[in-house]
Parts: sequence; C-alpha cells; structure tokens
Amino acid sequence: MADKQDKMSIVVFSGTVDKLMAVSTLATGAAAMGLEVNIFLTFWGLDAFRRDKVRTNMKFSPAFAEYAEPAMQAMQVKGVRHWLDTLYDAKEIGDVYVKACSMTMELFGWTQDDLDPIVEDVIGVATFVEQAKDAQINLFI
Amino acid sequence: MADKQDKMSIVVFSGTVDKLMAVSTLATGAAAMGLEVNIFLTFWGLDAFRRDKVRTNMKFSPAFAEYAEPAMQAMQVKGVRHWLDTLYDAKEIGDVYVKACSMTMELFGWTQDDLDPIVEDVIGVATFVEQAKDAQINLFI
Amino acid sequence: MADKQDKMSIVVFSGTVDKLMAVSTLATGAAAMGLEVNIFLTFWGLDAFRRDKVRTNMKFSPAFAEYAEPAMQAMQVKGVRHWLDTLYDAKEIGDVYVKACSMTMELFGWTQDDLDPIVEDVIGVATFVEQAKDAQINLFI
Repeated sequence: MADKQDKMSIVVFSGTVDKLMAVSTLATGAAAMGLEVNIFLTFWGLDAFRRDKVRTNMKFSPAFAEYAEPAMQAMQVKGVRHWLDTLYDAKEIGDVYVKACSMTMELFGWTQDDLDPIVEDVIGVATFVEQAKDAQINLFI
Repeated sequence: MADKQDKMSIVVFSGTVDKLMAVSTLATGAAAMGLEVNIFLTFWGLDAFRRDKVRTNMKFSPAFAEYAEPAMQAMQVKGVRHWLDTLYDAKEIGDVYVKACSMTMELFGWTQDDLDPIVEDVIGVATFVEQAKDAQINLFI
Repeated sequence: MADKQDKMSIVVFSGTVDKLMAVSTLATGAAAMGLEVNIFLTFWGLDAFRRDKVRTNMKFSPAFAEYAEPAMQAMQVKGVRHWLDTLYDAKEIGDVYVKACSMTMELFGWTQDDLDPIVEDVIGVATFVEQAKDAQINLFI
C-alpha cells in the first residue's frame, strides 16, 4: 500500500453519454479512494472526445433511447455536471490519466489536436496491456 | 484460500434480457466455484430490477433485435429459467450480493421499495470501488 | 514471472464487427506482451464465429451505425486485416485460446462443426470462471 498504489484501468470503447457518465463516475470514485486511474480511449470512445463534439454529443445506448429525454431532463433538474467536467474534477482529486489508442487515431486520420486537451497522450495497445496488467480493476466500457 | 475467499465483481450497466442472462449465468458459475459475487446495479441495469418491469422486460441488444424472437422461443422450448430466478438460485448456492448504485437511485428518484427484493442495499461508487479492488474478476456488463 | 505466465481473459458477448476488432487487437497486444489469452465466446459473440457468417457479418454497434460505412472504407483504404485473420495472427504470436460457451451452443442447437475452426473447445461457465480467476486482466466485451 505504501509503495504501490492500487490501480483501475478502463478501456472506453463506447461513446454514448450514459456510458461516459459511468466512466467519469467510476474514475471519480476510484480517484477518491486513492487509486490511480488509466483510461484508454478507443473507437467510439475516442470519437466522443473529439473537440468539436465532446460537449454536444447526445447519443444514448440505443436499447434505452426512449429514456434519453427524461434522463437528460432529470440530470438537468438535479444539476448533474457534464461527464467531461466530472472527469476533469477526477483529475483534480487524484491520479487520472486519459490516453488515446494510436490505432484508432491512424484509422480515422485524427491528430491529438482534434481531441479535447484532457487526452494527454497517444499510446499503442501493447503499452495499454502493460499498464492494465498491474491494475486491480480492469473494465471494458 | 482458507481465510480469503475469491471474489467476482460485476457492474451491471445494461438492462437487456440477453445481458442479464449473462450476468445471472456468470454469477451462478462463480457461486458454484466458491467465489463471492458482488453485483452493482447502475443506470439501465438498475432500471431492469424495478419491481414493475423486472419480469416483463423483453428488451434485447438492439444489434441483434432480429434474433430476440427465436432466442426467446429457444429458451422457452429448452425450459431456460428467467434470469431473475437464476440469480435467486445463485444466492442459494453461494455468496451473491446485489446492490444498487445510490447515484442512479437519486437521479431517477427511486427508493429501494421500487426494486425487486433481491436488491439488498444501496451503496455509493466509492464503496463499490473498495469491494472491486479485492476481486480477482471484475466485469462491466 | 518465470514460472507463471500473465493472463488475459475476455468474455466475448457482443458480435458486432467493431467490438470483434477490439477483441482481436487486444488479443494481439496481449500475446505480443507474452500474456496467455483466453477468449470465451457466448451469445452474439459466439454467433459471430459461425462458419457461414464469420466473414460476411457487417453489423456495427447500433449507436454508431452511421459511421459503419466510413469506418469500413477507412479500414479498406488503410489495408486493415479482417478481425478473424488478426485473431489467427495472434495465435501465431503467442498463447491465444478461443473457446465456446456450452450453454449458448445448447440453447441455439449448434455443434462445433457450425463454428470457424479457430474455436478449439466448448466449455461451461464454471471452467471459464476457474480460468478467469487467474487472469490479471478480465474483460467483458
């Protein structure tokens, strides 16, 4: 405990608002408990961090599309912060790192400039696996 | 092994019948192998445990909606039990705990009374993380 | 480290091309890093390995259906290999095992002959849990 920090590793594959809320909430909870959090963005999860849509994306899991409207309203009424702000908050609380999947970047021809600045690095899947191996909690969202 | 039980921790985010079947099957398998199973219900996963819809929910993963009908029929023909009954069975076999995410409860204004009695507690994400840290198997479904 | 190989265990529940690409990419990365990879196919994830559709399946995550076309085109332009070929490659690189969920096989009335030969065995959920317990990285995709 003293010399080795517990870790949570999350692959963010999905880019729907409901799942991104789960990611930012889990990251906040883990950071508050003193865990290091490594978030690896790939595919639609990376697409959701594109600078030009990160705040306007309104996609919900399609199976529950009919709840998107009431859920969004409930969030507004309760004053729930945007998931991206929650993620920035989590970085203030603890050690939260957000990295992009290099393969997805190449596939879609994106550069780091296309992404929200919370994304601090671009790494390959081997580097991700190396980190995930040391995490107590691994999740694919 | 003698003093420390192996553990499986599952975040149930999805509320489709096919994924809930996977949850109850994995919980059964893990309980049968002597693992403690902690199930944390959030978002649509928690919605699926609402007393008034837990047995009538027929939603399937939308990508495979065209298989919902034949899959449901195959289950009936094979006498597959309802996923909720399978989960109750898993609790008979071993140490299976089902808990609700407090944030989701607040967001949608639900109380524990709105949920099937298999849900035994309402906990925050920090408590969940604390438990998940000690689990050999962590899954987000 | 010397006598005990690190392990990654993946439950493949989803059968969309985008998620199967994530599976094969993660398996490749893990194999390249010297991890043993155990892939457990269930439900739509198993359906996707049926011999008669494994190469023609064009399903994408429904939330991102509008990107299926440009994504497929980008893959063709970049010369991205089919996810099944990538998975065969991963088996060449390291210890990658692909197994089918016996319950799903029985439910849908499939035999191993219906599946692509990369699926080497049919196992129950208890056997899967036993393996997953020893894996450093567990994912449900």
